[in-house]
Amino acid sequence: MNDLIVIGGGPAGLAATTYAMSKGLDTVLIGTRLGGRAGDTQYYAGQVEGEELVGEDAALSLQRYLTTHLQRLVDTVVVGLRKDDDVFSVRTEDATWSSRAVIIATGAQPQTLGLSSEWRAVGLGLSYSITTHAHAVAGRDVAVVGTSLRALLGVAELVDLARSIALIAPDSGALASPLGQRLQQHPRVRLLDGFHVQEIEVLTGSVQAIVVAREDITLRLPVQAVFVELGLVPNSQLVRELVPLDTRGHIVIDALNRTAQPGLFAAGDVTNRVCEQILIAIGEGTRAAVSAYAYVLAQRLGIGVSSVSTG
Amino acid sequence: MNDLIVIGGGPAGLAATTYAMSKGLDTVLIGTRLGGRAGDTQYYAGQVEGEELVGEDAALSLQRYLTTHLQRLVDTVVVGLRKDDDVFSVRTEDATWSSRAVIIATGAQPQTLGLSSEWRAVGLGLSYSITTHAHAVAGRDVAVVGTSLRALLGVAELVDLARSIALIAPDSGALASPLGQRLQQHPRVRLLDGFHVQEIEVLTGSVQAIVVAREDITLRLPVQAVFVELGLVPNSQLVRELVPLDTRGHIVIDALNRTAQPGLFAAGDVTNRVCEQILIAIGEGTRAAVSAYAYVLAQRLGIGVSSVSTG
Repeated sequence: MNDLIVIGGGPAGLAATTYAMSKGLDTVLIGTRLGGRAGDTQYYAGQVEGEELVGEDAALSLQRYLTTHLQRLVDTVVVGLRKDDDVFSVRTEDATWSSRAVIIATGAQPQTLGLSSEWRAVGLGLSYSITTHAHAVAGRDVAVVGTSLRALLGVAELVDLARSIALIAPDSGALASPLGQRLQQHPRVRLLDGFHVQEIEVLTGSVQAIVVAREDITLRLPVQAVFVELGLVPNSQLVRELVPLDTRGHIVIDALNRTAQPGLFAAGDVTNRVCEQILIAIGEGTRAAVSAYAYVLAQRLGIGVSSVSTG
Repeated sequence: MNDLIVIGGGPAGLAATTYAMSKGLDTVLIGTRLGGRAGDTQYYAGQVEGEELVGEDAALSLQRYLTTHLQRLVDTVVVGLRKDDDVFSVRTEDATWSSRAVIIATGAQPQTLGLSSEWRAVGLGLSYSITTHAHAVAGRDVAVVGTSLRALLGVAELVDLARSIALIAPDSGALASPLGQRLQQHPRVRLLDGFHVQEIEVLTGSVQAIVVAREDITLRLPVQAVFVELGLVPNSQLVRELVPLDTRGHIVIDALNRTAQPGLFAAGDVTNRVCEQILIAIGEGTRAAVSAYAYVLAQRLGIGVSSVSTG
């Protein structure tokens, strides 16, 4: 039996595994994409240097540490998770692992437009996080799709960087908020109210334009970057019958990254304490592992874990 | 005027500064001890290799990044902080800096025994955090001073590592808790109830013994490591008139590292979300900087920051 199984190989999962191994816990990391979304960079038309993301060094140093412990990594998908008495069973496609404690660090995926031209544009100018990539679009014409407060805060980042911003608003979202109203008046922002995206044009390896439409109007806007900001969908399917989720599907955690299920912890974008930044995810993963370690210590001593909470 | 001043050069402050600079904020880091307590390692009697702390690599990579921006670092002590209208004034011994936003990352200091023999022993076997150094004392005889739940959870870490643990209990603390009772029965734990520390003996560069006393009994216990676990005292004096502190003096922050004072953020061991781990502090510092950036963006657009909170 393992002490701890970490599900998910993004920054939160890597950090959790690193901490747990440093504490001598028998730990297995199960995940298919080591580094998670942390390595996603963008290429924009005319760009000379590769993009450098803050925190990448830190994530890479954790990855290097883990590669010296390769027997602890299982490169596969988890298809089932259950708990019987105090033991978790983690089922992959060809094995079942048992563990005293589990950390869920399965992350989140962006809500997509669902267009075939979108897939071709990913990484060539189309991305799903303004805040991650804003610094790379200085002086360019960009389009933002989405009207949540988070999307609008992203537009606020862009107004001092981009040459122009087409704000494509399929719905009104938070456009009526003070921030939304202020941005609509901004000289660099052009609101395309009620428009939907029809196509992303990619030519010679980078995004060249976005085609949007409303009823019988179709517009082709030359842009070098498209940000699809329709929100992140947490990958929480695995635990939806084990722990409470919030209305958007995030795993609900307390200040110490514990779920409502003793022995089950969570960290990163799958939780209701969304990170998005690599370095924040690393911190959250570490905190989850600190709590999981306290839980395993208590189990070893044969006492209830609630007795050892230090709040 | 600066956009942001970060006070404190530990992992939280370094991470906050790194993130803010990556976002193009005019940022100054003021602090006297770059890296904070992160570099504190221990030397134990007979130890061959230097101690390696988890997360040190990540903190060092941030430090390297910052050394390429040395004009942003001010190596001095902050002696005063005030806010007039929406502008903060940060006073050092020989200058006053103004800023739109401030992040407090001044950390915490361990509560000491106050013995002169203690100062000589620090780093030579005496430390203030079991969880940081536990892995280095495998097979040794150790003493722990303190009875809080946090101290006892540290003892729980040690029972599978150390050869023997003298638990020196100046007061009863949490000894009556299930964890405390279980540890008292543990064959490797010797409870010294009501004893106080009189002296730490250091010979040939490492801790050799601890002398404890109760009324007319004096005991000399040969140990190679002493953990003083009397709690951490947050360095929050600077802001005690600006923001609410909890009963132990921690700055109270919300889930996004905001204090009750708009424009003033906090991260790390100075807050009520204590970190202790380097990687957690890095995450907290980054989150504080994300929030400070949103605040500065809102100020630039001339709208209230509460309008841009994304919860």
